[in-house]
Amino acid sequence: MSEVRKRKESDAKPLESAESDHLDSEDDKNDLGQAPDLSKTIPTGTDKTPGILSIFLDNLPDRWRNWFIRGIFTMIMIVFFFLVIYGGPLALMVTTLTVQVKCFQEIINIGYAVYRIHGLPWFRSLSWYFLITSNYFFYGESFVDYFGVLINRTDFLRVLVTYHRFISFCLYCGGFVWFVLSLVKKYYIKQFSLFAWTHVALLIVVIQSYLIIKNIFQGMIWFIVPVSMIICNDIMAYVFGFFFGKTPLIKLSPKKTWEGFIGGGISTVFFGLGISYVMCQYPYFVCPIEYSEATEQMTVDCEPSAIFRPTSYSLPGFLSLLGMPETISIYPFMLHSLSLSIFSSVIGPFGGFFASGFKRAFKIKDFGDVIPGHGGIMDRFDCQFLMATFVNVYISSFIQTDSPQKLLSQVLYLKPEQQLQLFHMLKESLENRNILAGTP
Amino acid sequence: MSEVRKRKESDAKPLESAESDHLDSEDDKNDLGQAPDLSKTIPTGTDKTPGILSIFLDNLPDRWRNWFIRGIFTMIMIVFFFLVIYGGPLALMVTTLTVQVKCFQEIINIGYAVYRIHGLPWFRSLSWYFLITSNYFFYGESFVDYFGVLINRTDFLRVLVTYHRFISFCLYCGGFVWFVLSLVKKYYIKQFSLFAWTHVALLIVVIQSYLIIKNIFQGMIWFIVPVSMIICNDIMAYVFGFFFGKTPLIKLSPKKTWEGFIGGGISTVFFGLGISYVMCQYPYFVCPIEYSEATEQMTVDCEPSAIFRPTSYSLPGFLSLLGMPETISIYPFMLHSLSLSIFSSVIGPFGGFFASGFKRAFKIKDFGDVIPGHGGIMDRFDCQFLMATFVNVYISSFIQTDSPQKLLSQVLYLKPEQQLQLFHMLKESLENRNILAGTP
Repeated sequence: MSEVRKRKESDAKPLESAESDHLDSEDDKNDLGQAPDLSKTIPTGTDKTPGILSIFLDNLPDRWRNWFIRGIFTMIMIVFFFLVIYGGPLALMVTTLTVQVKCFQEIINIGYAVYRIHGLPWFRSLSWYFLITSNYFFYGESFVDYFGVLINRTDFLRVLVTYHRFISFCLYCGGFVWFVLSLVKKYYIKQFSLFAWTHVALLIVVIQSYLIIKNIFQGMIWFIVPVSMIICNDIMAYVFGFFFGKTPLIKLSPKKTWEGFIGGGISTVFFGLGISYVMCQYPYFVCPIEYSEATEQMTVDCEPSAIFRPTSYSLPGFLSLLGMPETISIYPFMLHSLSLSIFSSVIGPFGGFFASGFKRAFKIKDFGDVIPGHGGIMDRFDCQFLMATFVNVYISSFIQTDSPQKLLSQVLYLKPEQQLQLFHMLKESLENRNILAGTP
Repeated sequence: MSEVRKRKESDAKPLESAESDHLDSEDDKNDLGQAPDLSKTIPTGTDKTPGILSIFLDNLPDRWRNWFIRGIFTMIMIVFFFLVIYGGPLALMVTTLTVQVKCFQEIINIGYAVYRIHGLPWFRSLSWYFLITSNYFFYGESFVDYFGVLINRTDFLRVLVTYHRFISFCLYCGGFVWFVLSLVKKYYIKQFSLFAWTHVALLIVVIQSYLIIKNIFQGMIWFIVPVSMIICNDIMAYVFGFFFGKTPLIKLSPKKTWEGFIGGGISTVFFGLGISYVMCQYPYFVCPIEYSEATEQMTVDCEPSAIFRPTSYSLPGFLSLLGMPETISIYPFMLHSLSLSIFSSVIGPFGGFFASGFKRAFKIKDFGDVIPGHGGIMDRFDCQFLMATFVNVYISSFIQTDSPQKLLSQVLYLKPEQQLQLFHMLKESLENRNILAGTP
């Protein structure tokens, strides 16, 4: 959905001047609620032309030049996306981490500009310290889950694992004490505001990127399908809005229409079914990522689980009267993709609306200027954020129950006599339910 | 430590006027960093006299009256604390929940006053909605852990458990969409600020109270010892500061001294050893709380675990030369109580400094007026917050590894064939390590 907004805006007159006409801020004077004008302090990238391109494009009219730059960089991003997928899970994770750091930087820069602080003691170092601490905590938690075997081999790492939470918490406490010690009378309120700002940014950025990595470990399909659904929804909502758009959808983004919203949604459902059908056929996409001790590297190779194997579903009787077959054979994942596509086209756009409202609140056009023609990284990823949580919750509720392997690794952390105790309890329970009886 | 601050402040002239003299806010005009004067909008309780007491106290000079009210309500709170402990785990949990809700209300009220909004659409309802949603999520997570057996009996509850995260996330998404729809052009920046404010309040209040409940389930000692350590540290730092205080500790709270800090710390260590020694002798305090299927109620009865049983430690040789015994028999928990008391006297006060800085930033004296002579609930609990997390992390890092019972209940959630698979994997692993061989 944000894709739509950006395209239309680059067509229209720049947002800044358009907005400032009707932004009513007279009540906000001398008040915490006043929006400072950040247009000079936050670099925005929508109208920027990279040096090498400007040689070729300087003769074009402004409007066309913007379209052209935007198009080129859309292509570059899509190619990059394919390259990263081709590069495998590790490349995906490194990219996720990079995007996370860049998003955090953009949000913190806005905070810095909003509170117009120069020389506020330690603020930037503290923000980055909290970013590193929370990443240490969250990434550590996944590494323990997935590389447990590897980690258990090195004594030093084993200590880091056993006391992981304790170490992380001590690091956090260090930051907290540092913050309190850095408080300076004149800046109290700004410092507390930025403390809150940093924590909300961490909440949004770090947790989401942690969940994205967890999703990738479940199989790359859980990353690629949702991400491309959001991209598809963005583009198709724009197309439908462009050709059929009449009824305004939400005051926050006056150019969004119900026609675009619904058309984009329906397209996303079909796109989701299509891409799921294709990807379900490749173990590379559907297999969970595991660390193989034998080859000492990450592998994506498995017997695909039931939801990725063709399954016959019988259709209601009246359909066969219409000449349709009685049963249909599809991948069960395609049914799950329906839920994902409905979420990405109904709730996903609200991530875009939220970011849009945020930018309007602080009167900035983009979050940054990294991607010419598009703005900052956050401008491209605004709708993706809630999606990662949804996918993660969806997997844990409907797909993944604990696997025997994972539970076994937990069991092996117990003391030997406790392992034995569990063994006998399990044996008794299995015997009572006649599950164990039939086996030798 | 906050206890100290309050007592001293009620001696001195009221904080409000004292502070406004030297608070330099000229740079903050027309700026997000400006502190509005909230002294009229936030009710503060330090100087409030309850109706019934004023009959007896009106003849006393102001200074003595404040001391008297403060003393009476300190007693009332301590008596209440004992009553709650006597009431058992359920009473403790209900009290924690009540305190949590009240703290949240106080923080949100300050946000409401800071941004001076009247008629901002839906703000209060949204804040409470998020509070309910996050409590539903967190309390649900513990209930699943501890009442698993009970819950599995009712089909309706089982659905709530299986899809708990999904339901919680949907509830949250509902709130998120509601927030975006409630955005009104004139109030953008205030609405986003309050959204952040609400989320930080949730982070502080809900997560801490969730962790407190988790600690209580590990045994009430894990709640009572840390909480009373903080109270002891508060009081003793005041006493030492009063008699020996000379060297200022931190600019933020000019009346804190190094003498109070160190004296409070040393007292807390001894107090911690003493209270641990007493409490270790009662199963009522040291036993984890479990739901008993037989009696259909929560029970605290067990064979105390190793850390609550007297253990002999041999002392270094040179001490016996000084006439001390070669071995000493103590409860291992007393050694853990050392860590807790060091944390509560070194890091705990920073919770108080933080709250103190926060109140100065917004020029408020107290968070509320619930407790006459003390202020709001948050004023009494400011140092307790980080402590709950510390205790929780401490337990999970050093005390509690997964118990066989808990892992078994996870195993029983697997499909029968997976249970069997795990059984054989565990059997093989135990046999390979010669752990199983000796048993029938």
